[in-house]
Amino acid sequence: MHTQVAILGGGPAGLLLAHLLHRQGVDSVVLERHPRDYVEQRIRAGVLEQGTVDLLIQAGVGERMQREGLRHEGIELLVDGRRHRIDLREYTDGSGVMVYGQHEVVKDLIAARLDSGAPLLFQARATRLEGLDGVAPRVHFEHEGQARTLDCDYVIGCDGFHGISRASVPDGVFTVFERIYPFAWLGVLADAAPANEELIYAHHPNGFALFSMRSPQITRLYLQCDPDEDLAQWPDERIWEELETRLSCNDGWRLNRGRILHKSVTPMRSFVTEPMQYGRLFLAGDAAHIVPPTGAKGMNLAVSDVRALALALQARYRDGDGDALAAYSRDCIKRVWRAEHFSWWMTSMLHRDEANTPFMDRLQRSQLDYVIDSPAATRTLAENYVGLPWR
Amino acid sequence: MHTQVAILGGGPAGLLLAHLLHRQGVDSVVLERHPRDYVEQRIRAGVLEQGTVDLLIQAGVGERMQREGLRHEGIELLVDGRRHRIDLREYTDGSGVMVYGQHEVVKDLIAARLDSGAPLLFQARATRLEGLDGVAPRVHFEHEGQARTLDCDYVIGCDGFHGISRASVPDGVFTVFERIYPFAWLGVLADAAPANEELIYAHHPNGFALFSMRSPQITRLYLQCDPDEDLAQWPDERIWEELETRLSCNDGWRLNRGRILHKSVTPMRSFVTEPMQYGRLFLAGDAAHIVPPTGAKGMNLAVSDVRALALALQARYRDGDGDALAAYSRDCIKRVWRAEHFSWWMTSMLHRDEANTPFMDRLQRSQLDYVIDSPAATRTLAENYVGLPWR
Repeated sequence: MHTQVAILGGGPAGLLLAHLLHRQGVDSVVLERHPRDYVEQRIRAGVLEQGTVDLLIQAGVGERMQREGLRHEGIELLVDGRRHRIDLREYTDGSGVMVYGQHEVVKDLIAARLDSGAPLLFQARATRLEGLDGVAPRVHFEHEGQARTLDCDYVIGCDGFHGISRASVPDGVFTVFERIYPFAWLGVLADAAPANEELIYAHHPNGFALFSMRSPQITRLYLQCDPDEDLAQWPDERIWEELETRLSCNDGWRLNRGRILHKSVTPMRSFVTEPMQYGRLFLAGDAAHIVPPTGAKGMNLAVSDVRALALALQARYRDGDGDALAAYSRDCIKRVWRAEHFSWWMTSMLHRDEANTPFMDRLQRSQLDYVIDSPAATRTLAENYVGLPWR
Repeated sequence: MHTQVAILGGGPAGLLLAHLLHRQGVDSVVLERHPRDYVEQRIRAGVLEQGTVDLLIQAGVGERMQREGLRHEGIELLVDGRRHRIDLREYTDGSGVMVYGQHEVVKDLIAARLDSGAPLLFQARATRLEGLDGVAPRVHFEHEGQARTLDCDYVIGCDGFHGISRASVPDGVFTVFERIYPFAWLGVLADAAPANEELIYAHHPNGFALFSMRSPQITRLYLQCDPDEDLAQWPDERIWEELETRLSCNDGWRLNRGRILHKSVTPMRSFVTEPMQYGRLFLAGDAAHIVPPTGAKGMNLAVSDVRALALALQARYRDGDGDALAAYSRDCIKRVWRAEHFSWWMTSMLHRDEANTPFMDRLQRSQLDYVIDSPAATRTLAENYVGLPWR
């Protein structure tokens, strides 16, 4: 097989890039190691920045999102049982976010790809990348029991933190920055109508909790827990009781209970690779960087990466200008670190950290009070949450 | 001796409180353990918040400050050799700061106190506080070789971090919050015309540096150093070279050298006592809380405390209403923690911390870039720097 751009990974980054390239007349092949069902049902992030929403609409894949997604123009902070609303629209240039599951975005992008007839191979596992430092890289992969090769001009690694792309780069090329947090999120999907229209971020002595939703019928809830938390210790009743404790409001608001459809524990990590490219290989999304989920930045940062890549590849193929490709990492990295800082900041501000001294606990509380009390500080949260403008 | 309010400590907190009380017709006695010369020449802070400036003027002790002080409407951040101005006036409600040495404030307050004829005793060392938990406290002190007593209604501890006031309270009453930073400031006073009109806060791989001034003839400079730094290792030439390195600008700006008049090493500490009162004893300024100097909040926080105390004592003596006194600590503590957080934030953003991981160094840089790039983030720095409104 031969193509212009080989895309490893059929998550939102790889699929959106393939879609944007197709609209620009650039050929690509997407290799996804899992079956279609798996990627369409994988529960992940669910908050899209304004820029992500706009891009999906402009690219012609936002129709169902606009119909079924939930536009939010505010979030709430819950501190000492009091709810404080942050008006995202008022504190930005009228922006908001869209609550729409990552797997729904993936479904829409898969449908668009299949409609276009351009190649998207499921259960296609890349096994080796060859010639990344030359002008004709080759991807070795297995598909339907056969060893195959894909020759291409460029390889784009959208294959996540554990993917083969980053691992294929010689030692010493990348510098890695990392932080492992001493807590995790116990996530729950419940068959219950969301009892509040907006997300509620709760700071509580027992730990952080987040009230969220996936649709008018499905509530999404999170509890801060230990990284090695044993789900067997969390029967449904204990989960509901702890959620009710951490989300208790002095205005009498209560969440709705319902059948728990899904439970999982997600560890929290910050990770950045510098640079995000090597020869003809370019990394995007989780392959290059991981954020803790508190700022809802993970998928949005992936979208920002592939937007930059699509523009750079357009300049390369249409105008023969490779400057933007050469500068890809340099152009993206400041936004990556902004998202890393914001995600760290939201995480540090809202979680209970047992390693904190009492002094640091008081500073954390002062930071929270300041975000609530000062319009300038409120604005710093709001503008990062809806997403700062692209370059 | 007898008075209404015994004030321990003749620094800016104690002297300003005595002055404000005198204007309200409340009697006080100020006991200062050092000689007048000492307190009038002690080199300390030098940046007054807008509210501090306004209060000194309203209280009739701002005349020389208005004539000789340097009003600043901006500060500069120096990062990677580039200067970025933060327009304090534009980013607040037209506020600025006044560069005017703490010892100059002290001179003006001593002059006002002596003019008024109200008692201010130098070389008067408090030795024991008695009956703080009753209604008639007594201060034992030594003055001119004699043991004396001062009976009063209230004792105000403005006697600093090492003073007798806080130490006189029974164990278990106060909760202490503390952070010791792994660096200090080497401060220099130089007989050189300041080469820039505004302060320059420099972030440099070698460590933080601050360009400041005390008058049109005197430059004040600081270098981040180790807490146990040996001044003997810092001959003048080394100091100038290191200042020139850390303050080097790609626009060609250079500081002016001059004779070094004073050198010192100041360790950096955050410290808060909760509550700030016990019985008839009320703590103000450094006796209750210490901030690292990066945010220039120390003296301003002391002024904010004594302003609250003066109002509370006025309510008590004029209206017989002790509620504000009873609520003194509760009313002040949120501002204390805001100043603590801001001072920690400025310190963490600007200093080189060898204990930081490379990840945290990148976050620090992203925070700095954000403060420079985002008007909202710029505003958070500006509004804290000029001082948030009093309650």
